[in-house]
Amino acid sequence: MRQSQLFTKTRKEAPSDETAKNAALLIRAGFIHKEMAGVYSFLPLGLRVMQKVIGIIRDEMNTLGGVELHLAALQDPRVWEASGRWSDDAVDNWFKTKVRVGGEAGLAFTHEEPLTRIMTAHIRSYKDLPVAAYQFQTKFRNETRAKNGILRTREFLMKDLYSFSRDEAEHVVFYERAIAAYKRIFNRVGIGGHTYLTYASGGSFCKFSHEFQTVSEAGEDVIYVSEGDCGKGLAMEKGRAAINKEIWTEDVKKDLGLQGDFEEKKTVEVGNIFTLGTRFSEALGLSYLDEKGASHPVFMGSYGIGPGRLMGTVVELLSDDRGLVWPESIAPFRVHLISLATGGRSVKTATDELYEKFSQKGAEVLYDDRDLRPGEKFADADLIGIPTRVVVSEKTLAQGKLEVKIRKTGEVNMLSESEFLKTVPS
Amino acid sequence: MRQSQLFTKTRKEAPSDETAKNAALLIRAGFIHKEMAGVYSFLPLGLRVMQKVIGIIRDEMNTLGGVELHLAALQDPRVWEASGRWSDDAVDNWFKTKVRVGGEAGLAFTHEEPLTRIMTAHIRSYKDLPVAAYQFQTKFRNETRAKNGILRTREFLMKDLYSFSRDEAEHVVFYERAIAAYKRIFNRVGIGGHTYLTYASGGSFCKFSHEFQTVSEAGEDVIYVSEGDCGKGLAMEKGRAAINKEIWTEDVKKDLGLQGDFEEKKTVEVGNIFTLGTRFSEALGLSYLDEKGASHPVFMGSYGIGPGRLMGTVVELLSDDRGLVWPESIAPFRVHLISLATGGRSVKTATDELYEKFSQKGAEVLYDDRDLRPGEKFADADLIGIPTRVVVSEKTLAQGKLEVKIRKTGEVNMLSESEFLKTVPS
Repeated sequence: MRQSQLFTKTRKEAPSDETAKNAALLIRAGFIHKEMAGVYSFLPLGLRVMQKVIGIIRDEMNTLGGVELHLAALQDPRVWEASGRWSDDAVDNWFKTKVRVGGEAGLAFTHEEPLTRIMTAHIRSYKDLPVAAYQFQTKFRNETRAKNGILRTREFLMKDLYSFSRDEAEHVVFYERAIAAYKRIFNRVGIGGHTYLTYASGGSFCKFSHEFQTVSEAGEDVIYVSEGDCGKGLAMEKGRAAINKEIWTEDVKKDLGLQGDFEEKKTVEVGNIFTLGTRFSEALGLSYLDEKGASHPVFMGSYGIGPGRLMGTVVELLSDDRGLVWPESIAPFRVHLISLATGGRSVKTATDELYEKFSQKGAEVLYDDRDLRPGEKFADADLIGIPTRVVVSEKTLAQGKLEVKIRKTGEVNMLSESEFLKTVPS
Repeated sequence: MRQSQLFTKTRKEAPSDETAKNAALLIRAGFIHKEMAGVYSFLPLGLRVMQKVIGIIRDEMNTLGGVELHLAALQDPRVWEASGRWSDDAVDNWFKTKVRVGGEAGLAFTHEEPLTRIMTAHIRSYKDLPVAAYQFQTKFRNETRAKNGILRTREFLMKDLYSFSRDEAEHVVFYERAIAAYKRIFNRVGIGGHTYLTYASGGSFCKFSHEFQTVSEAGEDVIYVSEGDCGKGLAMEKGRAAINKEIWTEDVKKDLGLQGDFEEKKTVEVGNIFTLGTRFSEALGLSYLDEKGASHPVFMGSYGIGPGRLMGTVVELLSDDRGLVWPESIAPFRVHLISLATGGRSVKTATDELYEKFSQKGAEVLYDDRDLRPGEKFADADLIGIPTRVVVSEKTLAQGKLEVKIRKTGEVNMLSESEFLKTVPS
C-alpha cells in the first residue's frame, strides 16, 4: 500500500489521558483511536495486525478440529435466566438495553449459554461427540475500571472456543490438545518465551483452570513461578510451574505437590481455559444418549484468547524507545519502502518500479511515497515498527544497492536488488 | 470438511414462528439460528457464505481504493450530540445502555459521526484528499418490526464505506466509480440481472440518493422500472431507469426527464449510496486547507451493503422447492462428496481417498461421511445447496466413474475421476 493512500498520520505526543504504554504508542503510530474510556477503534494499521493475529489463532483452532461460527451480540434474557446468570446480582458487568417493542436484551459478555442452547438442536447421540466450535466475536463488559489501554476494555474482540465431550476423560484429551495449540499461538506471535501456563482458580466450575500469563510490568496479575522440576497435576509443564497468586495457599501448594523456591512476577493473562463440566449443559438441557440409550449431560470446556489484548501485550514486551517493533508474523506490513525523492525524478521512478516488483512478488509493502523530509520518514518508520526498512536514495542508486535496515536490531546492510528480493518475505 | 465434524443437523420443518422463506430455509439447512426476534447467529455453513460475500465486497472496496478499518460498536454520546443525532427524537432506533461508572453509551446504528471525528486528526490539507475508508462491522437498530428473516434484523453486519473529497466535483468522480464497484459485487454474487440502480430520496442530506434494488416478492420496497431509454441525471443507466415509489411524483419525473411506461416491482434494497455533502464535516469540524491556505469543510459520501441481507436475497431468488441453491461464488463449499458406503468398506475407502485428492487440489469439499441412508444424504445435499454433488457407490465404482450432479439444473453426468478433477473449482 502506498502511504499516501493510508490516511492515518503519526503524532509526536500521546493524548494526555492515555497513560498505558501500549495504547499511547498505538495511538501515536496511528494504529488505534480511543472512542471513550475503555473503547477503542482499530485504524487500518491496527486492523492489519489484528487480522494477522486472528489468522494465526484461526489456523490453530482449525488444526485442533474446531468449527467456526458467529453468535449474535444481542442476548435473549430467557437463555441466561435458565443458567442463573441474567441477574445483576449474579453477573455485575452486563451491559443491558431496552428493546423498543418491549423487554430487554443483554450484550454478550461471553457465549456459553447461547451456544449450549444451539447445541441442544444438534447433539443427540454419543456419535455426535466430541464437538468443538469457536468464533471471533465482540464481547461487551461493563467494567468498573477500564485500564491498561487495550489490555482491559469495555468492548473487545474475543476468540472463544467451546468443547463438548461425553465425559471428563474425553474432555481431558481435548483440553491437553488445546493447551498445546495455545502454546503454538503464543510462540507464533512472539511472546512464547515470556508466557507461563499457570494454575488458577476454577471459579464455580471446577477446582483449577489454566491461564497463560505473560510476564509484563503492565499486567494486573501476579503469579509465582518456579523453574525447577516440581509439581504434579493436569497439564503441569515439565521443568517449570506457575501458580496464580489468587490460589497461592498452603492447601493448593500441597495439592499440586509444589516444592522449592518460587519467584513472584507481574503478568498479563493472555489466554485462559476452563473445565466447565456440566454446569451449562444441565441448566440448558444439553444431553446425549450413550450406546445403551441412557441420557447424560454433555461435558463442556471453554477456551479464550483476546486478540486485542494479545496485540497490546506484544507492544508492551517488544517495543522500544523509538516506537513499535512487530514480529514478522503479525506485522501490518513486512517491508517499509522509503523513497528519499528529494533529489529528483529518478529516485521516485526507481522506487515506484521497486514497489511494483515487490508487490508482484506478493510481498506486503508499505511504500512511503509522501513528500516529506527524510528525518520525518525515518521517525515514522521507527514508530510504526515494520520489521524491514528499505531506503532508496540518490546515494543508494549510485551504488546500485538498497539500504536494508532491520527494525528490531538496527542492523543495516547494503544489498543489491536481487540479493534483497531473495530475502523478501511474501 | 467432513460432515461428521460439522456438528449442524438439518431439520424437516422450520420453526413455526419463522415465516420468511430465507430464514426458514437457512434454519432448516443449519446455516443460521434464531436467537430472538430480529437476531440471528451464523452457524458454520452460514458463516462460510458470509465470509465469501465479505471477500467479494472487500475485493471490490480495495479495488476502489478503500482502506479498511474497524470502528467500535459502543458510542460516545458527545460525538452524536455534536451532529444532533443522539436524541431519541432525532433518531428513533437507538439501542442505548447505561455505563456502570456513569453516563450512557449508544450501540452504533451507523458510523458517520465517529469516523468523521477520527478524520479530524488525519485530514488537514487538500493533499490528504480524496480518502475512502470502509469496514465490516455490526450495526444495531432498535426496529419496531424486525421482519423478513435476515432481510431486516435488529443486529446485522454492514459494509459501510465513507468517502472524503474536496468538493462535489471530486465527490462525483468517486461516486460513479462506487456505483460501478457495486454493480460488480451484485453480478459476482449472482443477482446482478435482477438488480436495478434506483433513484431514491436523499433524505436530509441531498436531493437524491441511489439504491440498488433487487426484484423479489420478499422485498419491502416498491420501484418503478422502465426498460426504455429514458431519463437523465447522475448515474442514470443507459437503457433502463428505476425510481423508488417514495419519490414517484410529477415533480421528480419532470426533474429526471422520465418518459414512457413504467412498471411497478417489489424489491429488496441490497445497497445504497448517499451524497452526504458537508452535513457531518461541518457539525464535527472536519475541514482542509486548499492550495491558497483557505479552509473548507470536507465533502462526504456513504456507501452501504449488508452482507447478511445480500445472502438472504440470494436465498429468496435462487432457492427452489428442494432447498438452497448457491452460486459458485458464495457457496459454503464447491463440491458435496457423498459416500454411499452401505455396501462395505471399499466404497468408504475409495471416497476417503477421493476426499484427500480433492482437498490436496485445494477444492472446497464437504464430505458426507456419515452413517445415514442414501435418501437422507441426498435430501440433505439438496437442502444445503452446494453447486456440485459427487456420489461414490458400488455402482459408480464398478463403472470406474463418479456420478456428478449439478444442483442448479439437476443435470447428471458420469465422469471419470480425471475428467471430474479437471472441472473441480479450487
